[in-house]
Parts: sequence; C-alpha cells; structure tokens
Amino acid sequence: MNTSKISGMQELLPGPQAIFNQLKQQISEVYHLHGFINIETPTIDRTEILFAKAGGDTEKQIYKVVKTAETAEDADQALRFDHTVPLARYVVEYESNLSFPFRVTQIGRNFRGERAQKGRFREFYQCDIDVIGRNELPISYDAEVINTLVEALRRFLQPKLAIRISNRKILSGLLEALNLSEKSKDLFSIIDHAEKVPPEKTATALDEIGLSSEQKDIINRFISIRGSREEVMAGLRELQALNIENETFRTGIEELDEVLRILENNGLGDSVIGDMLIVRGLDYYTGTVFEGILPEYRQIGAVCSGGRYENLAEFYTDQKLPGVGGSIGLSRLFYVLNEEGLLPEMEEKPIDVAVIPISRTEECAAQGLAKKLRELGRTTDVILTDKRLGDKMNHAAKIARYGVVVGENEAKTGEFKIKDFKTGEQKALEL
Amino acid sequence: MNTSKISGMQELLPGPQAIFNQLKQQISEVYHLHGFINIETPTIDRTEILFAKAGGDTEKQIYKVVKTAETAEDADQALRFDHTVPLARYVVEYESNLSFPFRVTQIGRNFRGERAQKGRFREFYQCDIDVIGRNELPISYDAEVINTLVEALRRFLQPKLAIRISNRKILSGLLEALNLSEKSKDLFSIIDHAEKVPPEKTATALDEIGLSSEQKDIINRFISIRGSREEVMAGLRELQALNIENETFRTGIEELDEVLRILENNGLGDSVIGDMLIVRGLDYYTGTVFEGILPEYRQIGAVCSGGRYENLAEFYTDQKLPGVGGSIGLSRLFYVLNEEGLLPEMEEKPIDVAVIPISRTEECAAQGLAKKLRELGRTTDVILTDKRLGDKMNHAAKIARYGVVVGENEAKTGEFKIKDFKTGEQKALEL
Repeated sequence: MNTSKISGMQELLPGPQAIFNQLKQQISEVYHLHGFINIETPTIDRTEILFAKAGGDTEKQIYKVVKTAETAEDADQALRFDHTVPLARYVVEYESNLSFPFRVTQIGRNFRGERAQKGRFREFYQCDIDVIGRNELPISYDAEVINTLVEALRRFLQPKLAIRISNRKILSGLLEALNLSEKSKDLFSIIDHAEKVPPEKTATALDEIGLSSEQKDIINRFISIRGSREEVMAGLRELQALNIENETFRTGIEELDEVLRILENNGLGDSVIGDMLIVRGLDYYTGTVFEGILPEYRQIGAVCSGGRYENLAEFYTDQKLPGVGGSIGLSRLFYVLNEEGLLPEMEEKPIDVAVIPISRTEECAAQGLAKKLRELGRTTDVILTDKRLGDKMNHAAKIARYGVVVGENEAKTGEFKIKDFKTGEQKALEL
Repeated sequence: MNTSKISGMQELLPGPQAIFNQLKQQISEVYHLHGFINIETPTIDRTEILFAKAGGDTEKQIYKVVKTAETAEDADQALRFDHTVPLARYVVEYESNLSFPFRVTQIGRNFRGERAQKGRFREFYQCDIDVIGRNELPISYDAEVINTLVEALRRFLQPKLAIRISNRKILSGLLEALNLSEKSKDLFSIIDHAEKVPPEKTATALDEIGLSSEQKDIINRFISIRGSREEVMAGLRELQALNIENETFRTGIEELDEVLRILENNGLGDSVIGDMLIVRGLDYYTGTVFEGILPEYRQIGAVCSGGRYENLAEFYTDQKLPGVGGSIGLSRLFYVLNEEGLLPEMEEKPIDVAVIPISRTEECAAQGLAKKLRELGRTTDVILTDKRLGDKMNHAAKIARYGVVVGENEAKTGEFKIKDFKTGEQKALEL
C-alpha cells in the first residue's frame, strides 16, 4: 500500500516539525501581545456560506465533504479555504457577545484543491489577524495590523523585511477620473501581474484593452510610483497635478499617507515602501493593500499580505462590518525559508535529556530522576528497553541533547553524571 | 443565510476558547516534558489507508473529500478519523529516519460523521501520545503512557482521578481455557457494555449466547474483580485456582501486575484500579487497556483512554511495530467539564491591558506605552476608535483586565495611571 502522504500536503520529520511549531508559537505570541484574541472556527462549514464569498478560481478549489452515496453536487458541507469566510459567519452569529473593534486571530489549517507545486500546499497553515469594526473602523488599524505582522515575522526572520503598501482607492479613483472604470477589472489584473511578466507584455496588455496613449502614459507613471512616504506622495501629487480630480483618488492618497505616517512614527520608516504595483488580487480588498517581501530574497515572494475590506460579511448580514486583516501563510513560508537556508538554527535534538537505566532494576531510580528533571522544565525520556547499554546510548544520542546513565551505584547514591552528546563532555549532574 | 455553525461542530466564544487553549497547552506541555515528540500528519489522507484500518461503524462515519463532479464512491481522499492511522502511515513511511522506541504526540482535529449529540462532536480535538517500538516494546511503556496522561489531566482537573486498568489477554486467555474463543467477540461486547445496562440485561445476554451455568459463573466472577493491585491479583489467582490453565491468561495477569506495580512505584497507587470490566471496544487493543474516570463524577464517562496494540501498521508493512498509546478527547472533555462546572477558573478578560488615547493626538504616545507593556509580556490593545471616551472605556473594560487612559498630560509627562477594571482601583503605573 502507498504510505506516502498525498501530494500537496505538508508532513515533516520531528526535527523540522519542532522548528515549524516554534515559528507558529512565536507568531501566535506576538499576535496575542498585540491584543488579538484567538478563536477557532470549524474546518467544515456550510457549502452555501463558503460559496457565497468564494468566486472564481477559489470555487473550483473548494473541497466538498461527503458521506456514503452523496455526490459533490449535493454536498452541503465543505472545507474552509481561508479564515475570513468563517470569521464573517462567526462575527455575524455572535455579534451581540463581541465588543468592537474586535481584534481577532485565527491560526490553523485551510484547504484548497490546487494543483500541487513546490511550496504550494493543498492543506496549509495560515496565521491571520483581523480587526473588525461595527459601522466604522479608523485607518489607524490598518497600520496596527501591518505593525503586528512585522513584529511577528521579525521574531524569526533574519534578512531585511520590507512592506510594500498601496491603497486600492487610488487606482479606482484614477480609473474613474480617466473614464476607465469599465476596464477596471482588466486594469487591476494587468497591474497585479505586471511584476511577474516582462514589461513588453504589460505594454501589449494595455494596448489590447484599448487605452489611449495619454491614458497609457498615466497608468505607466502611476505604476512606477514607489518609495518612501515623501517620494510616493510627491509622485501622486504630480499625477494629481495632471488634472486628476476625483474624490476616491484623493481619499486613497490621504489614507495611504496616514498609514505610512503612523508606521514611520512606530519606527518602521525603514521597512515600509509605498508601491503602486501592489494590488493583491482582484476582489475583496477596498482600501489599504500590502505585502511583505525580503528584498534580498525577492524570489521568495510575499511573506505576509493583507488589506482593508469595506464589509466583512455583506453576504450574510445587513450590518456593516468594515475590517482590516493580514496573514502569514506559514506552510508556504516555512517551505521557502527552508529552501533558502533561512530557517532559524535550532537544537536538532527534539528533547533535553534521556535517562538510561542500565537494567530493569534501576528503572525506578531513573523514573525518580526524570521526575525531578521534568519539574525543572527539562523534557525528559526514560529509555525502558531491554537492549544492550550501547544500543540504548545510541538511541539516547539520537533523541536527546544530554544523557544520564543510571546504574546500580547511581541508583544507590543518587549522584549522577550527565553527558553532553554534542560536545562529548561529561560532568556531575546538579539539579 | 444560516450563519450558525454546522451541528456537531465546536465553536467557542473568545473567553471559553482561551480556557480551551490553556487546557490544550497544558496537556501539550506535560506530553513534551515526558519526552513525547510532536508530529503533525495531514488532515486529508488516502481513502485506502483510512479504510484499511477503519472497519465497522467508523467506516460509515468517514468523511470523503471530493472536488467538482466526483462522487463519494470514487473519492480517493478522506478526512482522518483518528491520529493512529496516519501515525501508522507516518512511521512506515519515515521508519529509517526515526529512532525507536519512538515517543510521539499528535494534538489536532479528527473527524467523524456521527449523529450529533451532546458532547459528541463531528470535528473534535484529540491529544494523543504513543510509544512505538520496533519488533518489541517493554511493558514498562504501558505504565509510562498512563503516568503521562495522569500528570497532564492533573494540571487542570480538580476532582480525584482514577485510572481503571485491565489487560485483554486475561479475558482472551480465560475464554480459550473455557473453550469460548468462538464467542469471544460477543463476550467482549457484552462485558464492554455491562456498565451501561442493567445487570439483568447482561445476564440475559450471557444466557442468549448459550453459556453453561458454570461458564456464566466464572464470567461473572471475572467481571466482578476490581480494586488495588493486591485485591485484583488475589481475585485473579482464585480464578486461576479453578483449574484455568492458559498461557495467554497467565501472561495477561503478569503484565497487569507489572503495570500496576510500576504505577504504584511512581506514586500513583491511590489512583489506579485494576478492573476487569474495562475492555475499550472490540478491535485494536491486544494487551493493557485503560480509561480514566472521575469517581465523584462518573456521569462524565472516560476522561482519557488507551491501550497496547500488537502491531501499529500491520496493514501497511510486514515490519512488526508494537505500540502503546493513550488519548485525551479534549473537545468532549471540555464540554462535559463545562457542563459540570469543573473548568478551571480563569481571568475572564481575554487580554491584560487596554491603552486608551483620548484623541488622535495621543495615539503615538499610547503606542509607545503599549510597546513597553508588550516588551514586559503584557497582552495589550490600543483602542484607536474616534468614539467618546466613555464608549472607549466600556469597550476597554469588556476586553481587558486593566485600562490606561492617555490624555494630553500623560502623553507629555510619560506618567500614567492604571485602572483595575475588576476592583475599580486606580494607581500610578510602574513599568
């Protein structure tokens, strides 16, 4: 029987798993320190809930859950493909029990039946934070979400981190002003892909949707705007000076200015870049959009991303629930960091101490010692096999950093020697 | 649209979720201290892998995972229904990378399409430990697994905990000796259910499968054996004296004696009971079987359970991999503890401190203060809404234990007052 995991799933050996868990723990800790409260939504949700929001490619990727004799078509249950849809359902369902703005975090597995490829998983961890307002949510929260993600990533990322930020109102407003709103879907898509294709291809795409040379010129100027807050604001003001008069455009610029300003004040001035190439997909986001990258390792792609949405739960309620959220795709991030050799160094041995009774006679003394070590917070195995001491020592050296042999004499005196398997050094154990 | 969760799923408000998470964390910590190494297997696995082991009711409860146009019948993927089957696949797949005995823990969600009822979930957390040997695994590990589960549960369980232990070899051997092996499936089932039905029903059931009065008498004597190690051993020896000569029977008694003896030596003598009523289902276990109960709250049922299995992965490999494992069914346990009012008291407020800038002007100072509080390990929210101070204070009091208002003066002097929302007390904040 084929005992390999299904392709597209992540399954780690104990060593890498320990590093993965540590990263997850660090992210969770930073989220929590920033006041984000953990909830867990079920993995399985109603198909109608998931499909109301899914749309496009996502819809094709949703895994239905069926029991005997059902077909995919009549399946009324499916696996969640992100945390946002169940969050929307959760907030609507428990609204009267929650206090807003609701800072919330979900860390768990989501599912998409994508074609399996390197670093793309079908079952993957996402570490999300969101702030949900009722009726309104100040723009400061956009900065707060970015700030929190940066701190979480910096716990374990050595290379320089940059956050590229835009605001979709700027492009929407610009397109309105240029009478290009009808082509906005195409244009968002072209700009979203501009970085992944050669420049000629973007130029051709702009031609193909029938832009005038003046319109093309403005779009090209727009997408070349990037840099510090001052540089981006200068660039946008130049654009504005070309007679671009539009309320949405202006609001977008103000919001972006504000977000960048707050992040500067928080000491992140060096890490944030305004960048008009950032779109983050086609639907969903309505204001701030951002992604984190490692400029020295651009091939890695986004290490986090997110943005502002006007209305979290428009499909499920009339109540207006604006939100801003961000996510670290941990399964993918772990995979690419490993590929690039950027994972933090960790003790390779999964546990601290292996206690090795020489024979059954010393097991009780060995257990007593293990108990003390555990009370001191040391993860401790007692090797209880009847094998030769040499075999037990080999096993111990594989699983633990330190080893303590318990023989007749040690059992009697309660005095033990501890061996460091890394250095080979041995000394008296002091508890 | 119906925004309630699907029936049979667990979904908690932030307060109870925090308690749930704490329990999970405590269990994980104790497992880890005892040298159990965490792995995570995918939620989705091959149908053939899952079905090879499932059998009976479980098979009917397996959720298949399908994409568009597939039917349940041709689904080659399904959701795991326990941790043991994926563990078997994992151990076979990575055997050469692992060192044995392999102490392993999995804490995660499993899925069974059962009829939803109180405290029975379709998606539920299980916190498993297992020790897997290669070719052999000493009986001491059975005690080690029980010991670890007891310590984990005692971290948060106030009431007295009792572990009821038996060994299935004793009953198997007894039935062989009585020439009842053919009826062993029925008899295991009758004994497994004996506690849940009136005694007359058990008597009738024993009649119905055609036991002689002598056989019935012996079975009844057998199932009434319970108590301390000495009591149980005395009872079993009396049975043995009735001319019960069987190798399996004898081995079972020796193993049970040994497990009880080790647990006594570990200081658990008060908590363990030998109990011949313990069977733990029909298949799977081959030696030690146990379950934990709270004697003062018997209605709760088992708070943990487990046992020894001869061969973890017999369906996937010829390699003999004996193991012993145990599990805390955390979703169910959390539910019943809550029902009985036995959950640990916890700070109701999900975070430590809410910092409340009076207006936008003080946001920067508020963020600076929050940064310091977070560096000290305090979970801290900064309330950034433009609402009235009273509204902000109400929100703060709902989410945090303490509140710090940052006005013009505080921002200037860097001196803050901290209010305890529980006591109403206010005093100077010292960092």
